[in-house]
Amino acid sequence: MPNFYNRIQGRSLERLAALSDGIFAVAMTLLVLDLHIPSAAQVHSEGQLLAALGAQGPQWIAYGMSFLTLGIFWAGQQTQLSHIGEGARDLTWIHLGFLFSITLLPFSTRLLAEFIVYRLALGAYWLNILAPGAMLYWSWAYASHANLIKSDTPPEIRGSICHRILIAQSLYAAGAALCFINTWVSIAAIVLVQLNYAIAPRLWRRRRS
Amino acid sequence: MPNFYNRIQGRSLERLAALSDGIFAVAMTLLVLDLHIPSAAQVHSEGQLLAALGAQGPQWIAYGMSFLTLGIFWAGQQTQLSHIGEGARDLTWIHLGFLFSITLLPFSTRLLAEFIVYRLALGAYWLNILAPGAMLYWSWAYASHANLIKSDTPPEIRGSICHRILIAQSLYAAGAALCFINTWVSIAAIVLVQLNYAIAPRLWRRRRS
Amino acid sequence: MPNFYNRIQGRSLERLAALSDGIFAVAMTLLVLDLHIPSAAQVHSEGQLLAALGAQGPQWIAYGMSFLTLGIFWAGQQTQLSHIGEGARDLTWIHLGFLFSITLLPFSTRLLAEFIVYRLALGAYWLNILAPGAMLYWSWAYASHANLIKSDTPPEIRGSICHRILIAQSLYAAGAALCFINTWVSIAAIVLVQLNYAIAPRLWRRRRS
Amino acid sequence: MPNFYNRIQGRSLERLAALSDGIFAVAMTLLVLDLHIPSAAQVHSEGQLLAALGAQGPQWIAYGMSFLTLGIFWAGQQTQLSHIGEGARDLTWIHLGFLFSITLLPFSTRLLAEFIVYRLALGAYWLNILAPGAMLYWSWAYASHANLIKSDTPPEIRGSICHRILIAQSLYAAGAALCFINTWVSIAAIVLVQLNYAIAPRLWRRRRS
Repeated sequence: MPNFYNRIQGRSLERLAALSDGIFAVAMTLLVLDLHIPSAAQVHSEGQLLAALGAQGPQWIAYGMSFLTLGIFWAGQQTQLSHIGEGARDLTWIHLGFLFSITLLPFSTRLLAEFIVYRLALGAYWLNILAPGAMLYWSWAYASHANLIKSDTPPEIRGSICHRILIAQSLYAAGAALCFINTWVSIAAIVLVQLNYAIAPRLWRRRRS
Repeated sequence: MPNFYNRIQGRSLERLAALSDGIFAVAMTLLVLDLHIPSAAQVHSEGQLLAALGAQGPQWIAYGMSFLTLGIFWAGQQTQLSHIGEGARDLTWIHLGFLFSITLLPFSTRLLAEFIVYRLALGAYWLNILAPGAMLYWSWAYASHANLIKSDTPPEIRGSICHRILIAQSLYAAGAALCFINTWVSIAAIVLVQLNYAIAPRLWRRRRS
Repeated sequence: MPNFYNRIQGRSLERLAALSDGIFAVAMTLLVLDLHIPSAAQVHSEGQLLAALGAQGPQWIAYGMSFLTLGIFWAGQQTQLSHIGEGARDLTWIHLGFLFSITLLPFSTRLLAEFIVYRLALGAYWLNILAPGAMLYWSWAYASHANLIKSDTPPEIRGSICHRILIAQSLYAAGAALCFINTWVSIAAIVLVQLNYAIAPRLWRRRRS
Repeated sequence: MPNFYNRIQGRSLERLAALSDGIFAVAMTLLVLDLHIPSAAQVHSEGQLLAALGAQGPQWIAYGMSFLTLGIFWAGQQTQLSHIGEGARDLTWIHLGFLFSITLLPFSTRLLAEFIVYRLALGAYWLNILAPGAMLYWSWAYASHANLIKSDTPPEIRGSICHRILIAQSLYAAGAALCFINTWVSIAAIVLVQLNYAIAPRLWRRRRS
């Protein structure tokens, strides 16, 4: 009977997509709660306000990077789910694990913004990029193995999704490893990899066409 | 006329599912707001940062357990709703009661994280597992009684849902009762029961097949 | 051209429903953020923890009442939208006004919880019940006038929705007026009216059948 | 292969709409978290409570203006998406940029509420109206260029959307420029422009018909 129940549970991919959209929406919006406005007691002129805002540089960098991270994982999960034709209990729990790592991102972001020169904070942030990537890899591997993928999905997509995750995660790991030189270099490298996935392919295509 | 109005109200199962997904998404993401980052004033080295993060152990345990709780109840509600073919005003209010208990979980979690050695905090947390379970039991019993269940639902599912809730809640109650020995033992038992519902059945199936 | 643009804007009732579900979900979950856990510095025994939680009585009453308020308005808006067949720009803005008043409810709730014996706080809370009710009345009146209601909606529903809002709001106003005796009496009266709409009709039906 | 992957990614306009609704819902509801209730320690009578609430004038103005801003951009994005028949990877990222600027609005609002007489705060708020407008302009221009617009969209709509954004943004820019006279004049002008888009066209139509 437990096995029977497991088969009927978690079939609804629509509700999984709706829960995911909700969690990404809240996580994206919560990030901004950590952008504190300057204290009115310490600001007595337009110049002081500008200086106080400028001093928030690290927070803004961490905030922008985290929005990029969330956007990339949201788009990645959506691509996967659009090729999966049937839900399954185990797939639901793999995606709940994925969403768990997503809800941790506002914490990692705050940690990085507050301790931006500490390798430990950068390492924690990198783990928070690695974990959702690993869950998405597992999700696709599981869906392939359990025959949940839509039959009209071309073979080149089936292979490219896991391949693409491996390449992206290798680049993120290389970027994170640069923190042994300097955490700012590492952050710059990670943001460049992210921008590559979000923007640059568009530029490449333009050059080619 | 009130009865007539009651019949037309609350039919939309889709909007009930959307409200539920939204509440679960916010509750899952709000949990992390209680994971406070260490104060920068007290951290002067990588080692101190690691120690400060390590000292947050109870918060992380409470956080992880609550995400599991939310995931289990989300999956459970989804399974029920996927077998209910028609909404009804009373069913809507039973589910609003269910969602009310879900919105309380971030509070119980914070209480438990702050007072993790107090039996009272553990008891409050257990009540917050019992209440949504009881509402889901009531929801299925009501839907069965009012003939709202889809006609193609096999008889073995009709019975297994209430049965399964009773077994799970008995295990949670037994786990919670262990707090009279020690609250940590109790928490470990509850988490084991949760992991059994989230992960272990998969292992069982693998062994069998 | 502005008129033309206005005709094409705001047609999507589905997205209006999704935005509404999101706002209700966030508002329902945010309420609990105002339930502060007792300070660990002031609690040294199980008994002190129980006493500290008990002292939060007013917050819990305000929280429960606000969840009821949100549930009632969510169900009411859903009923209306399920009978409206076509969106319109003006209808969208009436519902955005409705949602604006809904987003204010966490503020009114906090105000009432903090100043529960002040007539002003109770009056502000009552205004926050009156405003969404008035917007829903306007919404239905507008939809009737602009022929947006589904053609298969029976005539008795067309009339009963506005009628029902007027009766409910009269009862809330009478309850709020009791604050000139005592705010606690007033709160009890409002909660009784709310429970009547959420639960009691079910009891009535049982007695009749 | 990257180009191939880019083609299959981000097709789902439904999930983009769901993410947008979620972000708007959270942003609209988060605004109210900045409306702090008066401190109970400083309020000893109904009159003092009224005075304390009255002193929050700037916060309320900023809050109301931001809700209008969010409502206008939500309706504008919805109108665009309802005329776009097919998603595309680049369109998804343009809209993620749009949503990024939307998540910043609670920050700009807080900044303006706290520093309402500073031109810098008003300028930052205006940038937060300009940015989503620019992204929506880009979105429509891109969709037109890439042939993503539904074939049954009348030609007059195709042109009117970009035209309308340009006029609205010109009016906002003119309103913002008034801050060199006085920030209050500037805020009044921006709110009038917003009300024109939300309410006034209805009045115009009534006069004409």
